[in-house]
Amino acid sequence: MRTVLFLLGLCGALPAADSVLSRVDAHAANFGEVSRRIWESPELGFHETASSALLQGELRSDGFTVEAGVAGMPTAFTASYGSGKPVIVLMGEFDALPGLSQKDEPVQSPAKAGAPGHGCGHNLLGSASALAAVAIKEEMAARGLKGTIRYYGTPAEEGGGGKIYMIHAGLFRDVDAVLAWHPGDANEVSLHSMLANNGGRFRFYGIASHAAAAPERGRSALDGAMIMLNAVEFLREHVPQETRIHYIITNGGSAPNVVPAFAEVNLIARHPDAQVLAGIWNRIMKCAQAGALASETRLEFVQGTNYSNVLPNDELAEVLGRAMRKAGGYQYTAAERQFAESLQKTLGAPAHRPGPDSVHVDKSEGSGMASTDAGDVSWVVPTAQFTAATFVPGVAPHTWQAAACAGTTIGRKGMEVAARTLALAAVELYDNPAELVAAKAAFQKRLAGRHWQTNIAPGSKPDFDYALK
Amino acid sequence: MRTVLFLLGLCGALPAADSVLSRVDAHAANFGEVSRRIWESPELGFHETASSALLQGELRSDGFTVEAGVAGMPTAFTASYGSGKPVIVLMGEFDALPGLSQKDEPVQSPAKAGAPGHGCGHNLLGSASALAAVAIKEEMAARGLKGTIRYYGTPAEEGGGGKIYMIHAGLFRDVDAVLAWHPGDANEVSLHSMLANNGGRFRFYGIASHAAAAPERGRSALDGAMIMLNAVEFLREHVPQETRIHYIITNGGSAPNVVPAFAEVNLIARHPDAQVLAGIWNRIMKCAQAGALASETRLEFVQGTNYSNVLPNDELAEVLGRAMRKAGGYQYTAAERQFAESLQKTLGAPAHRPGPDSVHVDKSEGSGMASTDAGDVSWVVPTAQFTAATFVPGVAPHTWQAAACAGTTIGRKGMEVAARTLALAAVELYDNPAELVAAKAAFQKRLAGRHWQTNIAPGSKPDFDYALK
Amino acid sequence: MRTVLFLLGLCGALPAADSVLSRVDAHAANFGEVSRRIWESPELGFHETASSALLQGELRSDGFTVEAGVAGMPTAFTASYGSGKPVIVLMGEFDALPGLSQKDEPVQSPAKAGAPGHGCGHNLLGSASALAAVAIKEEMAARGLKGTIRYYGTPAEEGGGGKIYMIHAGLFRDVDAVLAWHPGDANEVSLHSMLANNGGRFRFYGIASHAAAAPERGRSALDGAMIMLNAVEFLREHVPQETRIHYIITNGGSAPNVVPAFAEVNLIARHPDAQVLAGIWNRIMKCAQAGALASETRLEFVQGTNYSNVLPNDELAEVLGRAMRKAGGYQYTAAERQFAESLQKTLGAPAHRPGPDSVHVDKSEGSGMASTDAGDVSWVVPTAQFTAATFVPGVAPHTWQAAACAGTTIGRKGMEVAARTLALAAVELYDNPAELVAAKAAFQKRLAGRHWQTNIAPGSKPDFDYALK
Amino acid sequence: MRTVLFLLGLCGALPAADSVLSRVDAHAANFGEVSRRIWESPELGFHETASSALLQGELRSDGFTVEAGVAGMPTAFTASYGSGKPVIVLMGEFDALPGLSQKDEPVQSPAKAGAPGHGCGHNLLGSASALAAVAIKEEMAARGLKGTIRYYGTPAEEGGGGKIYMIHAGLFRDVDAVLAWHPGDANEVSLHSMLANNGGRFRFYGIASHAAAAPERGRSALDGAMIMLNAVEFLREHVPQETRIHYIITNGGSAPNVVPAFAEVNLIARHPDAQVLAGIWNRIMKCAQAGALASETRLEFVQGTNYSNVLPNDELAEVLGRAMRKAGGYQYTAAERQFAESLQKTLGAPAHRPGPDSVHVDKSEGSGMASTDAGDVSWVVPTAQFTAATFVPGVAPHTWQAAACAGTTIGRKGMEVAARTLALAAVELYDNPAELVAAKAAFQKRLAGRHWQTNIAPGSKPDFDYALK
Repeated sequence: MRTVLFLLGLCGALPAADSVLSRVDAHAANFGEVSRRIWESPELGFHETASSALLQGELRSDGFTVEAGVAGMPTAFTASYGSGKPVIVLMGEFDALPGLSQKDEPVQSPAKAGAPGHGCGHNLLGSASALAAVAIKEEMAARGLKGTIRYYGTPAEEGGGGKIYMIHAGLFRDVDAVLAWHPGDANEVSLHSMLANNGGRFRFYGIASHAAAAPERGRSALDGAMIMLNAVEFLREHVPQETRIHYIITNGGSAPNVVPAFAEVNLIARHPDAQVLAGIWNRIMKCAQAGALASETRLEFVQGTNYSNVLPNDELAEVLGRAMRKAGGYQYTAAERQFAESLQKTLGAPAHRPGPDSVHVDKSEGSGMASTDAGDVSWVVPTAQFTAATFVPGVAPHTWQAAACAGTTIGRKGMEVAARTLALAAVELYDNPAELVAAKAAFQKRLAGRHWQTNIAPGSKPDFDYALK
Repeated sequence: MRTVLFLLGLCGALPAADSVLSRVDAHAANFGEVSRRIWESPELGFHETASSALLQGELRSDGFTVEAGVAGMPTAFTASYGSGKPVIVLMGEFDALPGLSQKDEPVQSPAKAGAPGHGCGHNLLGSASALAAVAIKEEMAARGLKGTIRYYGTPAEEGGGGKIYMIHAGLFRDVDAVLAWHPGDANEVSLHSMLANNGGRFRFYGIASHAAAAPERGRSALDGAMIMLNAVEFLREHVPQETRIHYIITNGGSAPNVVPAFAEVNLIARHPDAQVLAGIWNRIMKCAQAGALASETRLEFVQGTNYSNVLPNDELAEVLGRAMRKAGGYQYTAAERQFAESLQKTLGAPAHRPGPDSVHVDKSEGSGMASTDAGDVSWVVPTAQFTAATFVPGVAPHTWQAAACAGTTIGRKGMEVAARTLALAAVELYDNPAELVAAKAAFQKRLAGRHWQTNIAPGSKPDFDYALK
Repeated sequence: MRTVLFLLGLCGALPAADSVLSRVDAHAANFGEVSRRIWESPELGFHETASSALLQGELRSDGFTVEAGVAGMPTAFTASYGSGKPVIVLMGEFDALPGLSQKDEPVQSPAKAGAPGHGCGHNLLGSASALAAVAIKEEMAARGLKGTIRYYGTPAEEGGGGKIYMIHAGLFRDVDAVLAWHPGDANEVSLHSMLANNGGRFRFYGIASHAAAAPERGRSALDGAMIMLNAVEFLREHVPQETRIHYIITNGGSAPNVVPAFAEVNLIARHPDAQVLAGIWNRIMKCAQAGALASETRLEFVQGTNYSNVLPNDELAEVLGRAMRKAGGYQYTAAERQFAESLQKTLGAPAHRPGPDSVHVDKSEGSGMASTDAGDVSWVVPTAQFTAATFVPGVAPHTWQAAACAGTTIGRKGMEVAARTLALAAVELYDNPAELVAAKAAFQKRLAGRHWQTNIAPGSKPDFDYALK
Repeated sequence: MRTVLFLLGLCGALPAADSVLSRVDAHAANFGEVSRRIWESPELGFHETASSALLQGELRSDGFTVEAGVAGMPTAFTASYGSGKPVIVLMGEFDALPGLSQKDEPVQSPAKAGAPGHGCGHNLLGSASALAAVAIKEEMAARGLKGTIRYYGTPAEEGGGGKIYMIHAGLFRDVDAVLAWHPGDANEVSLHSMLANNGGRFRFYGIASHAAAAPERGRSALDGAMIMLNAVEFLREHVPQETRIHYIITNGGSAPNVVPAFAEVNLIARHPDAQVLAGIWNRIMKCAQAGALASETRLEFVQGTNYSNVLPNDELAEVLGRAMRKAGGYQYTAAERQFAESLQKTLGAPAHRPGPDSVHVDKSEGSGMASTDAGDVSWVVPTAQFTAATFVPGVAPHTWQAAACAGTTIGRKGMEVAARTLALAAVELYDNPAELVAAKAAFQKRLAGRHWQTNIAPGSKPDFDYALK
């Protein structure tokens, strides 16, 4: 593999690439262990106490200055090395998903039934960024590179929006570039975006009554929710087909013999364009109001997730593309291949996806169908992101298969691809600050006069228990 | 049967009863034929041109002064004999029901598929009242009884509310009492009421669009209707159990590949108490508004039927009770019995209902589960009504079985019971005007300070085609 | 009040009534305190550990032999005194309702938000029966009356069906009569029944998928539930109006960005006639199957509550009627009157209900609109029940108003009426065992050859956490 | 314009192009008049008697042999000239759409309220193809070109599927190529497809009952339809986003006071891939079955429209592309420009669409979001189709705006572009039969071993009144 890398390296222009890659290699085993420890104790958003502390400890012992509990969130932190401009930020997520507990086996087998699991590979995400940060710091120190490298521990990406509170807290104000990545089933750099989303809790308040003796005196909050949701289903036909609307009922009454006085819906909508989404959201709100109107209940809305679509950065994507070509992919061992093939048999449709030994760099745009608070960062700082092959080809995030991969050597090899790419890209930027100027210009061009908007009010307090409800 | 009648007659106090009954007998065959001719050419509400003309002709040739096209309705008429007080009115309905075409056979067999039929026996209703009117007129003439007897031809009882326009036109202003009857499966006088109802058309206006190419540009009027109706279904649990809400979709879009720009619901709600009904109606209206709100369509409401519950008259019910006991029931012939038994086999549940040879007089109150514009008359004039056994025991109105009976000798024997009862009661009232004073007092007591209310505005024009839509 | 009682007493034939009433009086304060302690610490069905222990302790210290944890239920118990025939059973319930926590004030004010409360007055129910049992035991002991008096501590009446497991365990096999009561807003003995009910959990199993990235690969269990429930709403129009169907959604998905793989509905249906109910239930099951069919999910049904309608006992009702006339009602103090009037102002409609100073004894049948596992007992042993005025007139069970009353002196006065009635009736039966023979005959007549049926299989284990879900 | 054409012509290889274009010019005014006459008397599918006769007459008088009433359809016809191979077919549609009556004005203004209108421009479609056929025939005659040119008058494209019956009748068996076009808002040749569709009527049969007196005895057919449709709405989230499902309710009950014994839904589903559509259709059918199951009604399905997606032909698209480049676009007059601008103001969103003066030729694939029975033809004969700018840029088919354009000189200029393109392409094929061999090979490649499938059984009779229901 290394041979391939050298050959690929010829088409790039990466000074000191070998040195950077050696530094990543030197710490890879340690941060691989870190990723595994986080994977073994999955923690939900805003409750990633041990995961956050573990990463903080590593970075501190590697020479970073760590500030914990930033932006009013106990598990958020910053780790910094160096001083002055330019300031480059790597981001680390480490929250797990509810109900996705899984062993590192190619059959569905929860480690603990009903418990959370790393179905989005954030154990790798946070660890790879930390690995890269350490390698970058060592390179900066060795070569006396000017500027600051920071690692931002960003909690609760899965719905809690930790990064948004960090933006509100001003933590991105002096940042020149953010380099981000996400676990995936292939090594890819592109100009892809992600969906803007918006969500929250629709609470209906009715009047309780004995459901058998006096149902006519009751006003059912659950009726309000049901009428709203039926209306939302009718709405689906009349929104652009890329729209996504999904919901759960988090409270559907307390006892069947009592007309429900309270009911709650948790709903998220998404669209590639935040402005179109705002129009759709307005219509969803009308459905909710209709539910309250028809059931004679009272509606209350509690803002939840609200992520912007990702604004790609053409310049940084070029830098990352060069870096990934240099970083290269990886080969499966025989055991890994067997694991991958077993896992692929559990997937419904055949996967026509590239293997982990290849890297894909292009300028395609399109939109991934998930959402991330990295999108919000991309509206305030030049930001680029890529995926690395931590999951077996064909495996989608938020599945038990992804959770399984995230605990294996496949996941760890993928996180090394990510760390190599991040480290190579960051060092290139320190070496050529002009690229950061170009990145800023590319950022302004994509903004096209618009600016970041969010429904999460500055100064508001996160809903720390959002993932428990 | 006549023997029984004489025995029963002893407990009453009916002067000249024999004479009155003879006069009914003398015209019974002719009006029986009239009822059959109307039955053979069923006409929907406001379109009862031939039926109305036939009855007008009979009454005119029997010496009544006929005024046609009263109250702005071509098929409404008044027929009058005598002059001055007291004024007693008999009411005649003659409209048929859509889709209930039926031969006079005990198996479901439309005379003409999809055509109207006399499933409510109004061919008998109008004819029996006319038969009674003629007998009363002859008795008044023979004995020089003081006062006026009138026959009101009241169109479109099945939803068009002809009587309400006749009230608005002032036709009931000088009336002292109204004696009414309705075809049924037994001979009964009671203090029963009928349900108040309210109804109309909910029209939704949306935006058409190609349903495949641009569904997101359309706003579906049908969605508006569906969301409204789903909400109405949820409402059912939370209204008093005696409530009835029923609807049809009269326009559900014009082509499946076009987002419907128009949709229409025809809905009726009912409750024994008009005031409670008004509250329920308010909630139905909210469901409709919710449908429009959630689908971004425009709602228009067109008032339809609005009948008051029937206000019983304790005094007139006593008079009718005496009259029916004197009038007596009737016996089946062997052929009629066979017809009745065949018909009863087509009914789901066994009928524990009294036979046509008995008469039932009591003071039970309760509410029948249908509605009638005779209810509105009962709020402006002392009114009483009864049923006569024109249908085989167990047969409900608005069924093909009822339509079958209405064309047979069973129906005609029932209508004779009705005519005898009406004639005997009216003559008793002419003989004892004090009973009309008592009826007025009983009326005031039941009103209890309330007064007639209707959503049909004075001066508004009937929707003559309501039954065709 | 006592004066009134003596006057009323003349029409009865209650030997030793004064003595019995004195015995009740002597223990009333203590059991009033017991009722208050249970009220202050409301416990849900099958979790009434402290409440059950408290009543057991009282009865044990009053000389009863107590057996705890009977019929496989930790909080069920029997307390027995005497030996041999006849065997008369009083029943004590003591479970609270979820979400009805309330202070003893005439405004809605939870003692602890979201916590359970005694909205059905079972704190009084269990205490009054225990008070009566002690008085009866003392009277039996004093006069050497033959037979056995038992108190059955029956847990989880609110849906758990403790009594059914006690029937299955054979605890009613040697019983000659059961005397039961229930808190209400008036003192009434009649032949009223209660609704038969049936219920359970409808579980839908779908396929999880990322709701934004691959909704088309998911099969939503929540869709299954929603389609089922929409269909149930349409069903409401087409069942007899006395039917009741009510439900909550106990699991509506785990995260809004995951297509729900599991959803659960808890639904109860009721009708005065268990046989009609079975037909309706069959149609509800079709709605559930339709939900699974249309959403391509799998349906699982878990049987829940299943209570029989109450079979009245004409003979025991006569005994109870005599007893209640002797027991008499009670007067409000000025403070109680003020409390009552304040509370009544919180009720929507004016209450035309009898006051607590009157007693109502008649043979009306009809059906109360709630359900009870006392209904099941009534199908296996001659059983009669009545209500006592523990709630302010107009207050319905399962409301915060009822929960408030249950903690006041009004509730305690009502429970004394109940205790006096129970004690007088039981002693009459020991005195006149022939009445028990007549009660047995009346029981057989009402059974009319039918026998008790239940969906709760003999030997099955209760769902101890049913009220927590 | 002509100058432009000559310049463009240099890049093609069209022998005798000038001659062909002259022939089209010579007949353009006449067929423009024909298109206007058809536009003035819009006729619904299978009822295009006058439109069909008009086109037959023109072709007959121009020397074609006409056979009317082919394939069992009175308004279908073939018109033929020449003999032997190759056989090239042009297709002419002439049916209108219900409810789209419109004057040739840039404001919504029906010529006759509620009447049909040419909202898909088929008045132009049939006329342009006839114009081309005449020009081709003259060129063949003048130059002695070998082979046969045919015009197929194909009725009821808007849902009736006339072409499918013509395939079943063997009319396409000896055909070498079909050249087709469709009115649009731009001049475009590509490899675009259209959606496969499937549809039909879902009929529910219930039990009628008086909706107020005995709703519990009724089984509502409308409930069946509503439950089905609610389930279909829930289905939308879980099918691929390109799917289209749309429906109307063609019968929603006959009278609001009668439980509907009959209800009917007309539903169409579409997807770019017929095989995927079959899977989706299966799930829609389950929704319908669920509706019947839950409402205890009976379901009947009557097959309606079933069109295949369009199989592009790479070779014929090249021929058409060359022809259209030669044919060129057209310029607006000042009056036309004003009309266009007025009309565009009535469109919700700004139209970024090419003008009529440009032509667009590429190999893009994608799928248009409508469906056509030309798709079925494309599965049995090498077929290619294109659009010409008959509508103002931004105007979508099936709108009043399209209907307005179809009656103006804009529409007529667009149809001339189409006729020129068709004529040039056909003559090129007669001149170079090798291109037809290549077209056959391209056809086989796209088939990839599959063959045409349809739910319309061979020998079945069309539903001639489908558009009237």
